[in-house]
Amino acid sequence: MPAIKTAFIGLGIMGYPMAGHLARAGHEVTVYNRTSAKADDWAGEYGGRAAPTPGKAAQGADFVFSCVGNDEDLRAVALGEDGILNGMDEGAVFVDHTTASANVAREIGEAARRLDKHFLDGPVSGGQAGAQEGKLTVMVGGDPEPFERALPVIGAYGHAVTLMGGVGAGQLTKMVNQICVVGAVQGLAEGLAFAGRAGLDAHKVIEVISKGAAQSWQMENRGPSMADDRFDFGFATDWMAKDLDICIREAKVNGSKLPISGLILEYYRELQEKGYGRLDSSCLIKLLR
Amino acid sequence: MPAIKTAFIGLGIMGYPMAGHLARAGHEVTVYNRTSAKADDWAGEYGGRAAPTPGKAAQGADFVFSCVGNDEDLRAVALGEDGILNGMDEGAVFVDHTTASANVAREIGEAARRLDKHFLDGPVSGGQAGAQEGKLTVMVGGDPEPFERALPVIGAYGHAVTLMGGVGAGQLTKMVNQICVVGAVQGLAEGLAFAGRAGLDAHKVIEVISKGAAQSWQMENRGPSMADDRFDFGFATDWMAKDLDICIREAKVNGSKLPISGLILEYYRELQEKGYGRLDSSCLIKLLR
Repeated sequence: MPAIKTAFIGLGIMGYPMAGHLARAGHEVTVYNRTSAKADDWAGEYGGRAAPTPGKAAQGADFVFSCVGNDEDLRAVALGEDGILNGMDEGAVFVDHTTASANVAREIGEAARRLDKHFLDGPVSGGQAGAQEGKLTVMVGGDPEPFERALPVIGAYGHAVTLMGGVGAGQLTKMVNQICVVGAVQGLAEGLAFAGRAGLDAHKVIEVISKGAAQSWQMENRGPSMADDRFDFGFATDWMAKDLDICIREAKVNGSKLPISGLILEYYRELQEKGYGRLDSSCLIKLLR
Repeated sequence: MPAIKTAFIGLGIMGYPMAGHLARAGHEVTVYNRTSAKADDWAGEYGGRAAPTPGKAAQGADFVFSCVGNDEDLRAVALGEDGILNGMDEGAVFVDHTTASANVAREIGEAARRLDKHFLDGPVSGGQAGAQEGKLTVMVGGDPEPFERALPVIGAYGHAVTLMGGVGAGQLTKMVNQICVVGAVQGLAEGLAFAGRAGLDAHKVIEVISKGAAQSWQMENRGPSMADDRFDFGFATDWMAKDLDICIREAKVNGSKLPISGLILEYYRELQEKGYGRLDSSCLIKLLR
């Protein structure tokens, strides 16, 4: 495809390689990062340009991407005088990859509409490895027209990119993802802790039971490291606590019952209090040893 | 392999086709079932012989298999005057495929040892479909020598057959399996109920998120039917409640913590009280609608 003018806001553990894939695909990329040194690093590595504000990065871009920490960070880069929405051109498309609330997505979507600009919420799954390999799953909420336009550009780092509904539907889908993940991880944690107490070889148990109805991505990819009490990698407990908190808040709005997910959030908070916030979220098993 | 003399006790939804696979593999099979009409049906279908007691069925067999309902049923066919252990020859191998407690396995293993007979506990996973197709996963506890001897015979219906440790280790492994299963199912139930309330297309959500970290056998094989509120098939709530009860009792013995599995057992009991005991155990979602 022909080179396209893009901007990428937020060069964290996910955004840095995602923006890199845009540059490698031949697109023009202007970046912004709160800590400007990292934006300079990125520009040095990929040959793009670093801008002093999100709004300035967004100026003249056909597509603006962001991937920041939480709702508050997202409002800070998206809204206000120096924000993305104010800086970007009419008709351009803003795609946010932050895992955030559906409310903030709707709020930004509404603000974009008033300015004749387009907004898509597009949280991702696939983690750091998926971002580095350019194989992320992207769950998108928004209108079909800007989605179709953005699709080939997102393809630089998105392996499976699906429009799930109107603005907010991407975030809601990501919430379902996290709810399913933590159920599987907690079951695995209880099962493997039990295996240890029962004197079984946990690795052998995983090998055998992952052939049947107990199989899960979590069992295959986190089971062996949980059995070995290794958690110095992956998706941090702090991030999962943030994501689950978003789910519980949204459930209160839409009337969903999340009894077990709610308890698991309490477990994550307990792990944070014990100083395990940076460990992979499979460290739920620590509470059962 | 040359034809071998076998006996199969318990021709339920699992045992009936498992015994059938033994006959199809060319083995001589004598069957016993509490309701004798079913044993006659089986003998008519597969050309084997029906015996009037478990002990009589076991007489002269090199390998005796059983698959009954629970600990009590297992004691009834294994022990006592007319039981398997009393009827079987010295040196023969008794393999039980019931999902039962590790205690009853140890009790029967001890009784077998005193009579110079061999016992292996070998609960299975793979469900009714696995039994019919002869593709069960078999988790075995017992001594290596009888295990090696029984392995090619179990191969008639066992796809993956693994020795996990001494007598009881098969049951303990199956418990880990069920603990992991119910965590995944509950996460899926909360996620899909949430998806419904959030106005998402649950089938589309499953399609998208099953490509990543939320993927599980349960999501792929039960997610779509849960989304459609179909539960008239599969692994019954009554059976899962029985299995989880075994896990919770064993956890009290070995000191494991199973906080979420314990709550899920309460949910299954609530479903039983509502008359849903025969529905597939994925009907946990009914409590969240």
